[in-house]
Amino acid sequence: MAVNRQWILKKRPVGDVAPGDLELVETPVPVPGDGEMLVRNIYLSLDPTNRIWMSDMDQYMPPVEIGDVMRGGTIGVVEASNNPAFKPGDIVQPAMAGWQEYVVTSAAGKVAASKDTPMLAYMSGLGGTGATAYFGLLDIGKPKPGETVVVSAAAGAVGSIVGQIAKLKGCRVVGLAGSDDKCKWVVNDLGFDACINYKKENVLEALRRECPKGIDVYFENVGGEILDAVLTLVNLEARIPLCGLISMYNADGPVPGPYMFRNILMKRVLVKGFIVIDYLPRWGEFMRDMSEWIAAGKVKWRVDVAQGLENAPEVMQKLFTGGNTGKLVVQIGPEP
Amino acid sequence: MAVNRQWILKKRPVGDVAPGDLELVETPVPVPGDGEMLVRNIYLSLDPTNRIWMSDMDQYMPPVEIGDVMRGGTIGVVEASNNPAFKPGDIVQPAMAGWQEYVVTSAAGKVAASKDTPMLAYMSGLGGTGATAYFGLLDIGKPKPGETVVVSAAAGAVGSIVGQIAKLKGCRVVGLAGSDDKCKWVVNDLGFDACINYKKENVLEALRRECPKGIDVYFENVGGEILDAVLTLVNLEARIPLCGLISMYNADGPVPGPYMFRNILMKRVLVKGFIVIDYLPRWGEFMRDMSEWIAAGKVKWRVDVAQGLENAPEVMQKLFTGGNTGKLVVQIGPEP
Repeated sequence: MAVNRQWILKKRPVGDVAPGDLELVETPVPVPGDGEMLVRNIYLSLDPTNRIWMSDMDQYMPPVEIGDVMRGGTIGVVEASNNPAFKPGDIVQPAMAGWQEYVVTSAAGKVAASKDTPMLAYMSGLGGTGATAYFGLLDIGKPKPGETVVVSAAAGAVGSIVGQIAKLKGCRVVGLAGSDDKCKWVVNDLGFDACINYKKENVLEALRRECPKGIDVYFENVGGEILDAVLTLVNLEARIPLCGLISMYNADGPVPGPYMFRNILMKRVLVKGFIVIDYLPRWGEFMRDMSEWIAAGKVKWRVDVAQGLENAPEVMQKLFTGGNTGKLVVQIGPEP
Repeated sequence: MAVNRQWILKKRPVGDVAPGDLELVETPVPVPGDGEMLVRNIYLSLDPTNRIWMSDMDQYMPPVEIGDVMRGGTIGVVEASNNPAFKPGDIVQPAMAGWQEYVVTSAAGKVAASKDTPMLAYMSGLGGTGATAYFGLLDIGKPKPGETVVVSAAAGAVGSIVGQIAKLKGCRVVGLAGSDDKCKWVVNDLGFDACINYKKENVLEALRRECPKGIDVYFENVGGEILDAVLTLVNLEARIPLCGLISMYNADGPVPGPYMFRNILMKRVLVKGFIVIDYLPRWGEFMRDMSEWIAAGKVKWRVDVAQGLENAPEVMQKLFTGGNTGKLVVQIGPEP
């Protein structure tokens, strides 16, 4: 009997994800029914939002239930199909395939992977990561040439792309990241104007230095002290696309909002939470622009690939400790 | 020599405004130069934002300088004019006339006061107060029929008008106020669907009861615990026009933002700070609609008039203790 390894949510983490919160089990590989297909997952996307799904806080989709397979995005290959739209060998992104080797589904997005556009591109720049950067920055942030755009988690999956798009739009772009290596990467390789190592520098002072004309757009992935420093320096009518608040996800008690909350009023700031799935109807727009930018070398994507489904919970911690640069992915099995 | 009494800002208050922070002085009545006019102030508007102007926190216009006349809006009568556009007897609103009996200015808005539209209407429903309610609710809150609109400081100058406009737009309207009398007024006289006395009830529980379909628009005047309770109950894509944060203005230390800040992300909420002066170019729109609504009895305004310029600092405290119902005004001198 062929075996499907799956990570099951056993209990809701308190603070950091700990051993025992998830359990790796073995079940039979499922058999596709009418209209369904069997997909072998090859890459698993690890995202800060996974931690939200493990909790029972109020959130944008239902949390993962205790006893269920952990939710996650993947890309994989069709191994068997009773669905005329898909055939064995097709490369697909099943709708929320989960942390497992195999999934049976009737719904998936087919992608055209090639040497120039490898499967991993669809897990980063051409996937939800790239779309998050694209829509959050352009639809909410609305950067204008000459404005100053600040990006937290600048060396992360989304932040690294946000900064590059902002440069394309003619902005001064200042990133924040947690190591000198990350800062060097975003400045030297991605073209950010500056990057602040928030672990070494006083963030408020450094932002004041790097943003002499104040801050017009802040793409927020983090929350906490950085948000407070930014709110201290925002210009009138600044825009804050609220993409993530990773500094809060592992908290085991109430976390206060920014102490400079009042500046949202004083500076007439716009703050807007968003989730990329809201933009599904506009996906074509994103694919058109981003494909062109990537092909022209104007936007670069980077993946940080760890090996082995069995390591997923441990690898995921890198998101919270700053261990990854670029998009964090686990390789579950070989590419076809 | 005719005397002009003026309140001068002597030092920046720490916490509540205290005796000695402002000083009442007597100076000669100023003489208008070329193109100028002398206005005798009759009513002085007292607003929560006055407290902001007394501080040196980062704010939306420069703070009042120490030694300067305290800033404030008034309505008055022209006593002498070297400006062909104005003649003695005209009723005018000088641009930021200040806490004083007389002001010399070249810029003022002329108003057509009458029995049906008394001077005090221009200090409330037809003034900046009404415009704040109108633009904040309609331009940012964008209430749709059937939605639930929550208003804090519901018996205050702005909140009382916000709720009435939201009713005109077909919404369920729930107010929050600090006494049973205020709650009775907004429900029985202004037509709110419900009003919660936040001093007597658990706000979160009461909002849950009164907003069974969640909260779509929250017109924010207050901040603090009420904002946290609202953020706990917001619907997807809720809108929060951020008009004021009165609970923070007298703080003498850092005040945390809402603990439920993360729900701005989770529920894709829009938060937008605004100041009514941003809407000056659209004032005509407001005057057209609001005049019609007031004339038709669809929107009622109420003023709370205290006597005597000498009492202004003490009267202003009512805004922070919940002592006023409707728009708080000080009468400086008799109407002509």
